[in-house]
Amino acid sequence: MSFLGLLDHASVLVFALTGALVASRAQLDLIGFAFFASLTGLGGGTLRDVLLDRTPLWIAQPGYLGVACAAALLVFFTAHLLESRYRALLWLDAAALAVAVAAGAGIALEMGQPAAIVVVMGVATGCAGGLARDVVANEVPLILKQGELYVSCAVAGSAVAVALSALDQSQLVSGLACAASTFALRAGSLALGWRLPVYKPRPPRR
Amino acid sequence: MSFLGLLDHASVLVFALTGALVASRAQLDLIGFAFFASLTGLGGGTLRDVLLDRTPLWIAQPGYLGVACAAALLVFFTAHLLESRYRALLWLDAAALAVAVAAGAGIALEMGQPAAIVVVMGVATGCAGGLARDVVANEVPLILKQGELYVSCAVAGSAVAVALSALDQSQLVSGLACAASTFALRAGSLALGWRLPVYKPRPPRR
Amino acid sequence: MSFLGLLDHASVLVFALTGALVASRAQLDLIGFAFFASLTGLGGGTLRDVLLDRTPLWIAQPGYLGVACAAALLVFFTAHLLESRYRALLWLDAAALAVAVAAGAGIALEMGQPAAIVVVMGVATGCAGGLARDVVANEVPLILKQGELYVSCAVAGSAVAVALSALDQSQLVSGLACAASTFALRAGSLALGWRLPVYKPRPPRR
Repeated sequence: MSFLGLLDHASVLVFALTGALVASRAQLDLIGFAFFASLTGLGGGTLRDVLLDRTPLWIAQPGYLGVACAAALLVFFTAHLLESRYRALLWLDAAALAVAVAAGAGIALEMGQPAAIVVVMGVATGCAGGLARDVVANEVPLILKQGELYVSCAVAGSAVAVALSALDQSQLVSGLACAASTFALRAGSLALGWRLPVYKPRPPRR
Repeated sequence: MSFLGLLDHASVLVFALTGALVASRAQLDLIGFAFFASLTGLGGGTLRDVLLDRTPLWIAQPGYLGVACAAALLVFFTAHLLESRYRALLWLDAAALAVAVAAGAGIALEMGQPAAIVVVMGVATGCAGGLARDVVANEVPLILKQGELYVSCAVAGSAVAVALSALDQSQLVSGLACAASTFALRAGSLALGWRLPVYKPRPPRR
Repeated sequence: MSFLGLLDHASVLVFALTGALVASRAQLDLIGFAFFASLTGLGGGTLRDVLLDRTPLWIAQPGYLGVACAAALLVFFTAHLLESRYRALLWLDAAALAVAVAAGAGIALEMGQPAAIVVVMGVATGCAGGLARDVVANEVPLILKQGELYVSCAVAGSAVAVALSALDQSQLVSGLACAASTFALRAGSLALGWRLPVYKPRPPRR
């Protein structure tokens, strides 16, 4: 399996785990777990592939569906062992974001897309699955949480991939650096409260 | 018209009726009825066609739009005759699900897709229109209702289609059996409370 | 730049402004502004292009992304000067709707699509961006507001474009008339309360 294929599989697996955790919070049955695992795990990559006019990853390789279903099964039988499912969800989502951004940006780079498109594909692949999960489950999307970095991590990570690729670094190096920087920013935001200045309405000048 | 074309038309019609019923619950005007009828009636088939890189059904044959608008018109002028619009919505949705799953799985089978993809296309065609309807109308998606079979019916019905097709049964036989088993499961869940065991968090072992 | 390209750029710009205004109401950071500006500005055109099997506008011309980000930046630093951000949102959305409907219908006309498809593309291009904005931001979609014309304006405007094009009028004339009639109807609904009769459940006859 190529390095990009490996990234795609890893991001499907970890996002599928977060989808199954949301299904467990909604107390669904096993098929409901598989539905949310597939939606979350495959949503970002599918959007990327439709936009770039590629065959969606899981139609090209149905094995991806098996990965998502395995994640659903695992969570269905072990989620009760977790002390806080919400905490697990947040951190798994951070890991999935990092890997998915690297996969999305990497595939756009391989296709020779310009820098702006690479960044958008990193963001779309990283954020669409979790966004679909949250909208369908009727929860406040993680990307909307005030005072947290989320889309910003995906933008920064994709920019790292673009920069390293422009410096002729290998796919492996730029992919790993992209995932690492995305995860570091998101972890810093979750654990240490890193954030960007938010919009604050000021009263109009007199 | 081919048998699959007939299934597609029937599923558009019945899903469009459910969309128009949601519009009536939101007290929209006639154009709002047509919007919800089209979104619900055509959403599932459009997703299937975009994923499989086919021309969306209603672009290939604009007559589908006429079917959705006719459903909107019908509901706009007759919904007040119903005793319970919510009850009608539930049962029409069950019928639409059954027909749409058969249409989605049948088209994937005709294209020679592997079994896993056939099941996903059955689920996507069956569930996406109703899901879009519920998300846009800001209602709790039917597929999320705890303790009811919904996605499970679509999975089981698609599996029936795959099995019968593998046994060399005709498109007609496997399509009808798929629709019948999907509807039977959903009806059993609505009327008799059939369900799968749901996830129950247990306290962690000491 | 062609006239249709100009319409597409203008609709991206104005819809992006509305997306950024929603981000300001949610007190997001600058990247959150850019995310909402892009989602809203590019959503409708992207849906149209995916359905018509064209390359999404911003992949064909990444400059569109710059337009959306510029709108985000502008709103981030000036929204506090507005007296009522909601009022500004409503009226900008009306202008964006008008221009986007003209762009969507115009492109479908140029491709030689039949009248029904032209109307749907006008509606999809005009409504999808704002709908995505409202669903993701968890606000009641503008298109669902009871007793207001919204989708109806898009339908009527697209019909004007179809009619003028059938009368051999130029792209410029039919585009401008489409935008003007869409905006006039929406403005009349916002300012003067124009509306269509809505569905009123009547008690069943005895």
